[in-house]
Amino acid sequence: MTADIGLIGLAVMGQNLALNMAEKGFSVVVYNRTVSKVQEFLEGSAKGFSIEGCTDLRAFFSALKRPRKVIFMVKAGQPVDDLIAQSLPFVEPGDILIDGGNSHFSDTQRRVRELGERGIHFLGVGISGGEEGARHGPSIMPGGAPAAWPAVQPILQRISAQVGKDACCDWVGEGGAGHFVKMVHNGIEYADMQLIAETYDILKRGCGLSDSELAETFRKWNEGRLKSYLIEITAAIFEKKDADGTPLVDKILDVAEQKGTGKWTVANALDLGMPLPLIAEAVFARNLSAIYEDRQVAGRLLGDSTKSIHIAMYTLTRRLEQALYAAKIISYAQGFLLLYYASKEYGWRLNLGACALMWRGGCIIRSAFLGKIAESYERDPGLSLLILDPFFKEAIRRCLPSLRWVVAKGATVGIPLPCLASALAWYDGVRSSRLPTNLLQAQRDYFGAHTFERVDQPRGVKFHVTW
Amino acid sequence: MTADIGLIGLAVMGQNLALNMAEKGFSVVVYNRTVSKVQEFLEGSAKGFSIEGCTDLRAFFSALKRPRKVIFMVKAGQPVDDLIAQSLPFVEPGDILIDGGNSHFSDTQRRVRELGERGIHFLGVGISGGEEGARHGPSIMPGGAPAAWPAVQPILQRISAQVGKDACCDWVGEGGAGHFVKMVHNGIEYADMQLIAETYDILKRGCGLSDSELAETFRKWNEGRLKSYLIEITAAIFEKKDADGTPLVDKILDVAEQKGTGKWTVANALDLGMPLPLIAEAVFARNLSAIYEDRQVAGRLLGDSTKSIHIAMYTLTRRLEQALYAAKIISYAQGFLLLYYASKEYGWRLNLGACALMWRGGCIIRSAFLGKIAESYERDPGLSLLILDPFFKEAIRRCLPSLRWVVAKGATVGIPLPCLASALAWYDGVRSSRLPTNLLQAQRDYFGAHTFERVDQPRGVKFHVTW
Repeated sequence: MTADIGLIGLAVMGQNLALNMAEKGFSVVVYNRTVSKVQEFLEGSAKGFSIEGCTDLRAFFSALKRPRKVIFMVKAGQPVDDLIAQSLPFVEPGDILIDGGNSHFSDTQRRVRELGERGIHFLGVGISGGEEGARHGPSIMPGGAPAAWPAVQPILQRISAQVGKDACCDWVGEGGAGHFVKMVHNGIEYADMQLIAETYDILKRGCGLSDSELAETFRKWNEGRLKSYLIEITAAIFEKKDADGTPLVDKILDVAEQKGTGKWTVANALDLGMPLPLIAEAVFARNLSAIYEDRQVAGRLLGDSTKSIHIAMYTLTRRLEQALYAAKIISYAQGFLLLYYASKEYGWRLNLGACALMWRGGCIIRSAFLGKIAESYERDPGLSLLILDPFFKEAIRRCLPSLRWVVAKGATVGIPLPCLASALAWYDGVRSSRLPTNLLQAQRDYFGAHTFERVDQPRGVKFHVTW
Repeated sequence: MTADIGLIGLAVMGQNLALNMAEKGFSVVVYNRTVSKVQEFLEGSAKGFSIEGCTDLRAFFSALKRPRKVIFMVKAGQPVDDLIAQSLPFVEPGDILIDGGNSHFSDTQRRVRELGERGIHFLGVGISGGEEGARHGPSIMPGGAPAAWPAVQPILQRISAQVGKDACCDWVGEGGAGHFVKMVHNGIEYADMQLIAETYDILKRGCGLSDSELAETFRKWNEGRLKSYLIEITAAIFEKKDADGTPLVDKILDVAEQKGTGKWTVANALDLGMPLPLIAEAVFARNLSAIYEDRQVAGRLLGDSTKSIHIAMYTLTRRLEQALYAAKIISYAQGFLLLYYASKEYGWRLNLGACALMWRGGCIIRSAFLGKIAESYERDPGLSLLILDPFFKEAIRRCLPSLRWVVAKGATVGIPLPCLASALAWYDGVRSSRLPTNLLQAQRDYFGAHTFERVDQPRGVKFHVTW
């Protein structure tokens, strides 16, 4: 009964998180199903840290201070349920089980409820930042049983990334809120990455920039309002040389893989009826890249040429910076719109500003920009559309002509800009107080008697005519 | 033991299908859970038809010739499972249960398997065409237990729509294939409708066409290669007057509703990793229209004005017709790509040409165009990308400049064209033998050690570098 916290699952993320906690002064006990891994870890990277290991669960749970606090770092899905079942004989009411993996939020909702009925506090905690983050300070998004928060807060906020005096970890909300927010983070990450890729495509395919010019461009952007981890590593990537001295990025196959959280975000938006096309386009852009053989055949048969864009370098990079910034605002506006409505739908009372603050450091989408979003929610905690905040409204107003120019240019020269174009269409759609959707409703009433509402009658009153 | 076929569920679709079968010479017995509906139907619209009614299931199943053939026309989900359970005491091996509702194909997969283990043949049959179609000839997409097909073929092909000598009904494939194909049909329907709405928006908001000019434009288009049910009713809609003599369409609220099959199509594409952004944009366009209050606020704060497009009427309608045609080809190419890969994934061996033929008549997306698609699959039954078929390749080549013009124009003047823009980006993406996705893979390896493939190494060999 001496360890502050326990951790189960010694894959890289689990190991690094244990080291992180020990380094910050907490005594840690670890367990792994394949027990040989425990000894390897203790004799390897854990040497010299206040980390103990157990090779059976009974001993593991006995070694913990009450209430027990245990982080699971195992594969999402059945393994989490299995581990919960195996742990139940050794826990008592008031103990805290914490799932730090990539579980789907609906599983977390269920587990919080089921364990709550037994008096066990369950937390679903999104952790972002990869291996490096886990080791030195990730973004941590905890949700679940609120009663457990005070007990784990000192640990989680201590091991998370810090921006200034703020920990990139704060209470997100009940049920599956933590894993939900992590999921939306990942969806936004997909969009950020695809938007950067489209900008790169315009610069390279459209304007013929060399890799060193690309590195220079992104490095400059990283000194301004686009400053972010993803822009920073993009600049570094263009500088990285292959063994033969040529840029490595040009040797990398253009087939994107994915692990599923982007897809989950889109599926959830569909379920909630929220318009999230930009993240959807980012996921589909990866899918499109992956039908590689089809693309090669299509390239040969349809021609894969694009026209050149002739424009002064200074004007080009200024326009692209503005377009990327506007699209980024719109992308985050979609993500936060989903958070806003999901919070209502699931009764989580999410603190949207806190979400932005948590993402400022540690995670993949970390950026200065997120501080601006947090300020928006400070000004108006009930803001549904981020693009209506005075700061972002003004920023978009200034950048919009460039976004229009880039999208029109891509369409004209034949460079695919699915996310930039979708961002613009969404913005123009949202600000359309009258859309052409009246025609759709007329068609639905025509062929299916689905009825329609009228502009001159109260909402909810349905009409049907014989067409 | 005299009835050719039984039908359970006397909502409008069920009633009309029963009348259709009786009119085509089949003797029908019907049952409904609320038994008063049976008598109402028999004394009402069924009067004079060879339709009998039963008020209990035992009598209903006893009245059927062997093997029994029973169509369920009930709400999708639990009601279908309940009805199956209630029917089991009265059926015997070799009998055929047919689900004619809007079930999700995965439920149908399960039911085919579970009932197959009891020797009962289960069919999941997509039926499209609304009330009118059900009464006089819908498009019918049967799938499930192949052994059942010969027994129901004469009935289903007799009651379906006919185009020339062809019934708009043919065997689709095993398991949930029938309901899957119906689902994709509906997804394509969403896209068709949204593409038309965007064209309407350019014509009206962008160019100021009156409703009678709009009616005239769509009527003319319906005389050409765009000829289709949806274009036909669109022309009619613009001519329909409200009580005060002004066009009714302008009084209809621009908030679109949906019943979920478009959403299912997108979710399935995400699951299969197939790039289906156009249908996704169509679903999200409906969602966007539905956040009506947000749009009104945004319109006030951001301004909802668009610039005018100045162009001669003849040039305008020619360009839009070409853009719409190109986007339509791309939309169907996405839908058929999903069918193509789903067929492989689920082992259905779908006949894609037959799908196109089934959709030529009876259903909402019926059109001459689908005959062209059927011809493509006659030329090459293994075609994955419809845009590579010589006919469509040439059609797009001619129309592409107009699609580029319209998308660029929409971006410039501020009219949202999510589906037209997405169609173009998809086309330009597919024909890109080299996409900027190499950068994405570099980023993923940089922050998560996710590895990448190389252009100068065999597929499947993964690399990781220290960046």
